[in-house]
Amino acid sequence: MPEFFTVLSPAEALAKLWQHLPARPTAAPEMTPAADALGRVTGAPVLAPEPLPAFERSAMDGYAVRAADTYGASPNLPAYLSLIGECPMGRAPAFTLGPAQAALIHTGGMLPAGADAVVMLEVTQTSRPREIEVLRPVAPGENVIHRGDDIAAGAPMLPAGHWLRPQDIGGLTALGLTSVPVARRPRVALLATGDEIVPPEAKPALGQVRDVNSYTLASLVRQAGGDPVGRGIVGDDFAALAAAAEAALAGADALILSAGSSVSMRDMTAAVMDGLGKPGILVHGVAVKPGKPTILAVAAGKPIFGLPGNPVSALVVADLFVTPTLYRLQGCAAPPPRRSVRARLTHNVASAAGRVDYVPARIDYNSDRTGPETLPRAEPVFGKSNQIFTLVGADGMLVVPMDVTGLSAGAVVEVRLF
Amino acid sequence: MPEFFTVLSPAEALAKLWQHLPARPTAAPEMTPAADALGRVTGAPVLAPEPLPAFERSAMDGYAVRAADTYGASPNLPAYLSLIGECPMGRAPAFTLGPAQAALIHTGGMLPAGADAVVMLEVTQTSRPREIEVLRPVAPGENVIHRGDDIAAGAPMLPAGHWLRPQDIGGLTALGLTSVPVARRPRVALLATGDEIVPPEAKPALGQVRDVNSYTLASLVRQAGGDPVGRGIVGDDFAALAAAAEAALAGADALILSAGSSVSMRDMTAAVMDGLGKPGILVHGVAVKPGKPTILAVAAGKPIFGLPGNPVSALVVADLFVTPTLYRLQGCAAPPPRRSVRARLTHNVASAAGRVDYVPARIDYNSDRTGPETLPRAEPVFGKSNQIFTLVGADGMLVVPMDVTGLSAGAVVEVRLF
Repeated sequence: MPEFFTVLSPAEALAKLWQHLPARPTAAPEMTPAADALGRVTGAPVLAPEPLPAFERSAMDGYAVRAADTYGASPNLPAYLSLIGECPMGRAPAFTLGPAQAALIHTGGMLPAGADAVVMLEVTQTSRPREIEVLRPVAPGENVIHRGDDIAAGAPMLPAGHWLRPQDIGGLTALGLTSVPVARRPRVALLATGDEIVPPEAKPALGQVRDVNSYTLASLVRQAGGDPVGRGIVGDDFAALAAAAEAALAGADALILSAGSSVSMRDMTAAVMDGLGKPGILVHGVAVKPGKPTILAVAAGKPIFGLPGNPVSALVVADLFVTPTLYRLQGCAAPPPRRSVRARLTHNVASAAGRVDYVPARIDYNSDRTGPETLPRAEPVFGKSNQIFTLVGADGMLVVPMDVTGLSAGAVVEVRLF
Repeated sequence: MPEFFTVLSPAEALAKLWQHLPARPTAAPEMTPAADALGRVTGAPVLAPEPLPAFERSAMDGYAVRAADTYGASPNLPAYLSLIGECPMGRAPAFTLGPAQAALIHTGGMLPAGADAVVMLEVTQTSRPREIEVLRPVAPGENVIHRGDDIAAGAPMLPAGHWLRPQDIGGLTALGLTSVPVARRPRVALLATGDEIVPPEAKPALGQVRDVNSYTLASLVRQAGGDPVGRGIVGDDFAALAAAAEAALAGADALILSAGSSVSMRDMTAAVMDGLGKPGILVHGVAVKPGKPTILAVAAGKPIFGLPGNPVSALVVADLFVTPTLYRLQGCAAPPPRRSVRARLTHNVASAAGRVDYVPARIDYNSDRTGPETLPRAEPVFGKSNQIFTLVGADGMLVVPMDVTGLSAGAVVEVRLF
C-alpha cells in the first residue's frame, strides 16, 4: 500500500476510481420483459423493427378527402363532396375514394385508398344526405399522420445505456417489442465490520449496536439499479475480514465495506482492501465533510468502497461514489439527475475552504417571500454526523462547494433531496 | 350526467376530485419487512421502542476520563492520569474509573462507569507507561454520545404518511424494527378501449395499433407506489365497456380508462364512467394542453380517470392527476417532489392564456453561459402530441402556466424531468 495519499476532491476521487474500471459493462446484456424494465438501462441500441404508424391515420374527427377537390372552397362557395361511407376503426376501409368523394373518419382511423387529407368536422356542413359541404381547402397530407411519422422502420429508437422511463416502455410496446436488452444489475456485496455490530433482529447487549449501514446502503444500491447482497457482519479481526471480503468480492461486481469508525479499524479495513488485488487502493481520504476517511480501491476491474462507519457519512459518501459508479457499471452515461430544490437559507452555515460540506437540511415549502424570488426555506439541521435520526428528520443535503468558506442566511441554495 | 361542465384548471380539477375521496386510506396498514419498504408510505406513526444509543458512547478515539480531573490542564501543566485499561468494542468495560484514572477508548466504544468525558488522542501525550498527560481540559459530556441522544425511547420516529427513504430504513433497523406498518399499495385497474387497439404481442392488421397506454400508465402507477392491474382491451361497445369497467373497478381501488381519441368514443367513455356509481363525473375537460378531454369521476369513494387515448396526453394527465391521487390514497401528504431542472429556453414557445401548456423539452447540459447565471439549455420538442416518440426523445416537460401567453427564447424556465 502506498504510504502517502493526497486528499482529493470528490470529483477527482471519482475520476481516479473510474480510470481503473472497464469503460463499459463487461457482462452481456440480458433480455427482460418490457413491462418490468422501468428504471433498467438498455444494454444495446434498440432499432425500430417497423414503422409507426404502419398506415396513414387521421389526426382528427372529420372526412377523408382528396385535397385537390377542396381547392378554392370557402363558406360562400363550398366544395360539394359525395359521402360514400365511414372508415371503420381497426380495419382497412373496404372502399377507394374517387374524385369529389368523401368518407367519415375518426381520430386514429385508417385513410381509405385515394384519400390524401382529412377535413375537420368543424369546417364542414351537411345540407343533404350523402353529401358534405367543405368550407375551407385542405392541403395534401393535412390532418394525416403518415406511415413512419412517429418513427421510421430501422430508425434508432433507444441508444445503449439509456435509463428506461414510462414513455420508453410505451415506445417498446408500440412496436411490439415485449422484451428489451438491458444491462445486468450489478451485484453489490455489503459487508459490515466491527466487534460492536449486531444484526437488526438481535437484542444488543450493552456496548453493542445494530447494523444500520447494510440496510441504508442496500436501499441506495437498489435505487441505482443494483442488486444488493448482504454478506453479514465481521468482527475486528484481520484474517476473518480479509477472508470475508475476498469471498464477497468473488461473488459480486462491487464490494462495499462499512468500516468501523476508529482509526485502528479503518487501518485494518484499508489493509484488507489493498490486499484484494491490483491496482488496490486508489483514494484514501476525500475532501468532503462528513466522509473524509473514505477509501476507494479497485481489484480485478471491480470497485471496492471503504465507507466510514457512521451512517450519515456512509450515506453521503455512497451518494457521491457508489450511485454514479453503479450507473457506470450499467453503461449509463446520463443517469437520472438527483431531485433538488432551490431554497432560501434560514441560518448561516460555516464551512472550511478546500472541502465540500454536506449539511442536512429541512425544507419548509411555506415559501419565503422576502427576496426578489418566492422560494421555499432551507433550514440546516446541525446534528452530530453519526446520528441516523439527523437524516431521518431532514429532507435533503445542502452542498457547500469546495471553494466557499460558508453560506449566509438569506442566500439562495440548491438542496439535494433524498 | 350533468349537461354542462366548466373547463377547470388542473389544480381546481384535482381539488374537486379529492373532495369526493376519503380523507385517509380506508384499508388497514400492512406490516412489511423494513428491508423491502423503500418507497412505501408509513400507515401509522412509528415510535422509538428504545433509546438510541442505549449506552454512553465515545464520539472519538481517545481516553475516557472524569472531566474534573482535567480542569486547569495545559501543555505546560498537564493533568497526569493513570491508564488503567482499554474499553473493549461491543462489550461493557469490566472496570470502573476512579479519580485520576483514564482508559483507552475507541470511537463508538462504551464509556466505563465513573467516566463522564472523552479526551481526544490528539490532546494527550505519553511519557511513561500506564500514564497519560492531558494537555487541555474537557467539560463533562465532551466527546460523549449520551443514551438517547440520537432518539429517546418513545419519541416519534416516523409520522404516518411518510414516504420511506434509505435513511428511514436505517432508522428502523437501528431500533430493531425489522418490519414496518405501511399503507397497502392501491390497486389500479387499467382498461384500454378502442376497436383499433391490439395487445403489444399481437401483429396488428392494417388499421390496428398496439396498446401503449396500458404499459406507460402501469409504469407510472408503479412509480407512485401503486399496483397496476391490466384489464385488457375493450372495443367500442357500450355494454361491453360498461361491464368491463364495473368488473375492473370492483377488484381495484382506482380505475384508469384510456379512452379512444374520437369524440364518439369519448362520449361513450363518459357515459360509462358516469354509470359506475355516485357521485359520478366531477370534471369533464381540463384547461391543459395536451389533455383537455380528461374526465374525472368518483364512484363509491374510488377515483376513476378517463384519460385521452393518445399517449402523450395520457402521460401528461396521469402525471397531473393519477400520481398525486395515488400518494393521497396511501395517506402521503408530502410525496417526493418531481425531479426538475432550471434551464434557459432556446426558442420561443407560444401558448394561450387560460390553460396550462406542457411542452416536451430536451435538456442540453453543455450549459449556456450567455446570461448572468450558468444554466443548461432547454430545447422545446415540437412534435405531434399523439406521438410516443416525441416523449421518448424528450428529457422533460416545460410547463407554461395558466396566465402566460408564451415564453421567450432566453427565459429561465423550470423543466419537470421524466
